Amino acid sequence: MPSNTLPVVQVKPLVKGSPAYEAERVSLLEEFAAKVPDSLRLPIELINNPPKNVTNVPQQCGLLTPEELAITEKYDATTLAALIASRKLTSVAVATAFSKRAIIVHQLTDCLTEWFMDDAIEQAKHLDEYLQSTGKTIGPLHGVPISVKIHLPLAGHFSEVGFSDTRVKDKEDCHIVAILRDAGAVFYCKTNQPQAIMHLETVSSWGRTLNPHNINLSSGGSTGGEAALLAMRGSVLGIGTDIGGSIRGPSAFCGIYGFKPTSYLVPRKDFVAGGSIPELGILATAGPMCGSLRDMDLFMSVLLDSKPYLVDPRLVPIPWTGLKSLPQPKPLKIGIMMNDGAIVPQPPVMRALNWAAKKLKASNNFSVKTFEPYNTAKAIKNIRLAYWPDGGNGIKKHLAASGEPLLPLTQWIIKDAEGPELTPAQILAQRLERDQFRCDFASHWASQDVDFVICPAFVGPACEHETSFYWNYTAFWNYVDYPGAVVPTPIKAGKKGAEKYAADAPAPLSKEDEHVRQMWEEGDFEGAPINLQIVARKYHDNDLFAALEKMQWVLELP
Amino acid sequence: MPSNTLPVVQVKPLVKGSPAYEAERVSLLEEFAAKVPDSLRLPIELINNPPKNVTNVPQQCGLLTPEELAITEKYDATTLAALIASRKLTSVAVATAFSKRAIIVHQLTDCLTEWFMDDAIEQAKHLDEYLQSTGKTIGPLHGVPISVKIHLPLAGHFSEVGFSDTRVKDKEDCHIVAILRDAGAVFYCKTNQPQAIMHLETVSSWGRTLNPHNINLSSGGSTGGEAALLAMRGSVLGIGTDIGGSIRGPSAFCGIYGFKPTSYLVPRKDFVAGGSIPELGILATAGPMCGSLRDMDLFMSVLLDSKPYLVDPRLVPIPWTGLKSLPQPKPLKIGIMMNDGAIVPQPPVMRALNWAAKKLKASNNFSVKTFEPYNTAKAIKNIRLAYWPDGGNGIKKHLAASGEPLLPLTQWIIKDAEGPELTPAQILAQRLERDQFRCDFASHWASQDVDFVICPAFVGPACEHETSFYWNYTAFWNYVDYPGAVVPTPIKAGKKGAEKYAADAPAPLSKEDEHVRQMWEEGDFEGAPINLQIVARKYHDNDLFAALEKMQWVLELP
Repeated sequence: MPSNTLPVVQVKPLVKGSPAYEAERVSLLEEFAAKVPDSLRLPIELINNPPKNVTNVPQQCGLLTPEELAITEKYDATTLAALIASRKLTSVAVATAFSKRAIIVHQLTDCLTEWFMDDAIEQAKHLDEYLQSTGKTIGPLHGVPISVKIHLPLAGHFSEVGFSDTRVKDKEDCHIVAILRDAGAVFYCKTNQPQAIMHLETVSSWGRTLNPHNINLSSGGSTGGEAALLAMRGSVLGIGTDIGGSIRGPSAFCGIYGFKPTSYLVPRKDFVAGGSIPELGILATAGPMCGSLRDMDLFMSVLLDSKPYLVDPRLVPIPWTGLKSLPQPKPLKIGIMMNDGAIVPQPPVMRALNWAAKKLKASNNFSVKTFEPYNTAKAIKNIRLAYWPDGGNGIKKHLAASGEPLLPLTQWIIKDAEGPELTPAQILAQRLERDQFRCDFASHWASQDVDFVICPAFVGPACEHETSFYWNYTAFWNYVDYPGAVVPTPIKAGKKGAEKYAADAPAPLSKEDEHVRQMWEEGDFEGAPINLQIVARKYHDNDLFAALEKMQWVLELP
Repeated sequence: MPSNTLPVVQVKPLVKGSPAYEAERVSLLEEFAAKVPDSLRLPIELINNPPKNVTNVPQQCGLLTPEELAITEKYDATTLAALIASRKLTSVAVATAFSKRAIIVHQLTDCLTEWFMDDAIEQAKHLDEYLQSTGKTIGPLHGVPISVKIHLPLAGHFSEVGFSDTRVKDKEDCHIVAILRDAGAVFYCKTNQPQAIMHLETVSSWGRTLNPHNINLSSGGSTGGEAALLAMRGSVLGIGTDIGGSIRGPSAFCGIYGFKPTSYLVPRKDFVAGGSIPELGILATAGPMCGSLRDMDLFMSVLLDSKPYLVDPRLVPIPWTGLKSLPQPKPLKIGIMMNDGAIVPQPPVMRALNWAAKKLKASNNFSVKTFEPYNTAKAIKNIRLAYWPDGGNGIKKHLAASGEPLLPLTQWIIKDAEGPELTPAQILAQRLERDQFRCDFASHWASQDVDFVICPAFVGPACEHETSFYWNYTAFWNYVDYPGAVVPTPIKAGKKGAEKYAADAPAPLSKEDEHVRQMWEEGDFEGAPINLQIVARKYHDNDLFAALEKMQWVLELP
């Protein structure tokens, strides 16, 4: 890599594209590096010889002041907003601290695609002046820094929709960014996503995003840049998007909170320039990624309280009550899905499920039973086909336009659908099958008499690089369009070989299951956090938060 | 027509199909006729020499008892339900009266495709016995007869989706029918719809449905059988469906109430067997057709109170408050759209708009202004293309399968889209353009600062047969997916030539407008009722009913 790009930790080579593409890539990276002052660069020795767990580097590297460490580590977004509103912190101090920390985190995990501290401080100055002169905040997020996944247009900065040829400098904010900006958010960086925005990992022209808890593992994807950045407190609140697990997967891989709402609740206008072929069959949605339950709630309330349906009438005008929803009748009926009938999760995930079941059973607020899975294999087969009614041809056109290489995980996600484009009648048939599945699953759910389901967020902890093949535990909920939140637990994966599948674990349920077991036996997942996923019925997002409000005490959520 | 079919009034010959198709048609009609006793047949002299306005025939024909006339004429569904619940009427008496009247109306308008009085009386007997033995009704519609558009599956009866080759005897109710049945409804007939279910008139294998107010005019379509039947009190409550005006058009043509909700509010599971190509771009919805505002509200409340989203999670779980919604701040801001910028409505419609504006302006409950139309021509062009991503090929396959002739109005609705099937990318582009239009229109609406819009339901009163070319005033609201109700006014079209375009009417806005004026000059619309349409923002269906509740007094709605 030429010396005028910013050195970042990398653990595995990238697939090369055409010479023209590679030259363009270097120019992107040089453009990025030009903004990063020497004073915020980590020693090259550290970059070349990083610890396996890089989470403590920001504290130890000496590039952040004690105040900056405190600002970035002690508070969630809710508290930061309160401290700024009460003038105990300035917006400039907060923007500075997060901007500085973000660029440090980037050097350790390759999580950013753009970094604009100067711009952030400029925004923050205006906010401080406004508060100073009027005595009022401009909104509930006054001065709160928010990190933004690269595909979401943010005025004056670059977006791309998963392919190098789609890179463009945006003139306007997309709807969700505009609302957050109006509420006072400060923007300071954009974050990495994978090719096609359709891996459960994050590798792009900007490189591979690493898991800060163990850099030999993936940060997850497609919102992996956010997840790595947030897990290392380089951001306090980020915007992700999810069509198969892209919020929940990386949030779980990195041990933070993530929430995929029901589609058409959260503003999404213009959030993918030119639209997205997978959305002909499966709707994507934006959602929060952050470090606390109440920050997810804050994010949702700011967006929905703005009456976004007056701007985008596709949005369903269900008011947000979230954590403040009226109490539901006790006990809450919880179904625990120990496995999905297709792939038994790896041991630490099983351990986390048992841990949660035990905690919840000990409380009179919950009635806990096993939730029987429903036809996961069919749902996963169908969603993989539904993503690509064009047989994957659109992807290949984008790659050909710039010489960008077809990455293995892109090939993986399109392979079942490769072939001729579907006819309108075939697309209709796919949608009808999806709708029938949704109705059948609703009936299955009702038959089990539960209000909420707790299940894995992934087949294991964060996966090793280039192995995120099985989207089962997240994509199923996109196929049925149910809201799901992932929450951290105190459970972590131990040293390699220290934990085996339990003697009473089910026999392998499929060849995919065998592969997952093999990856467990062979892999080193040390330090990877384990999240669990809590799911509610479609459009019952408020009920889900009401349940999380109750669970947080029992599950001792951070 | 062979003598063993039931003679019905017809005013215009039907297009012939293949000999096999024509033979099949005769056998359908014979099957129908076999159930109709001589005692319920109108004199053949009357069928052959009908009055232009047939609405008084049921009263005068002598086939109904005074009690049957009272049952069918004096009450709406809400009152009938109350009278049955309080045992002032029996379900059997009500089912008998409506069944008898329906078959009389059918002979005058050709509104039915199936009639099953015996079955209805059987259902009603069970209900009477249940009420007798338990002292309770089985639900809020206990004993209320409901007529059903033919494409909606009703267990034990025939449905078809607009083509003869799709005719099938259904084993199960579709979701909406099942809910109404559970609430106590009695089913006694199915009603006519046009080929492809995509004309704004009603001509099918069963013949042409006539407008009872003037049989030289159309009943409207596609739910034209319901409209004619309801207008002549052969039904008190019917189920229609609407993807371009198919509830609102015929309701307006026949002078009854009709409501097209926002899509995905009202149960629709299995309501079109095999799905519908137009729904790839534009969603259809079911809705009520009836004789009173409160019956529309009753229909909606029964459906939504059943929590249908637990069965079909596509449905948005917005609770129905309807007429009982909390009062909105006064004054309600009403925009009156005098024309849509593409076609100026014919004189009696202009008269009705002015009448309504004057009434509303006289009340302090309303602030009234002119609503500026928005890009109707583009919306109509786009929706005509969006209906047929398959270039109309699906229709042609159906017709070829049975030898059914391609009807002129089917040719009319597909002609812009005829050609190669769209690719997935083209379908996506169409949907993106639609979504952008929806957002742009929402912004246009907001800029005019109105809560509700009053506009025509059609370019004129009921049209002459085979001339329902211009769907502008209904299809626009499908393109943006806003809820719209049509309500009767006291205005009617006068004698031919008695009413001209006002001297200050706008000059023709388009060649379509010129055609509409020519049709007005040449046509005879005597006696045709005029309805108006009231529209609210997407998902603001409850607000719409709250506004209708206020308007009904000022507009003196029946």
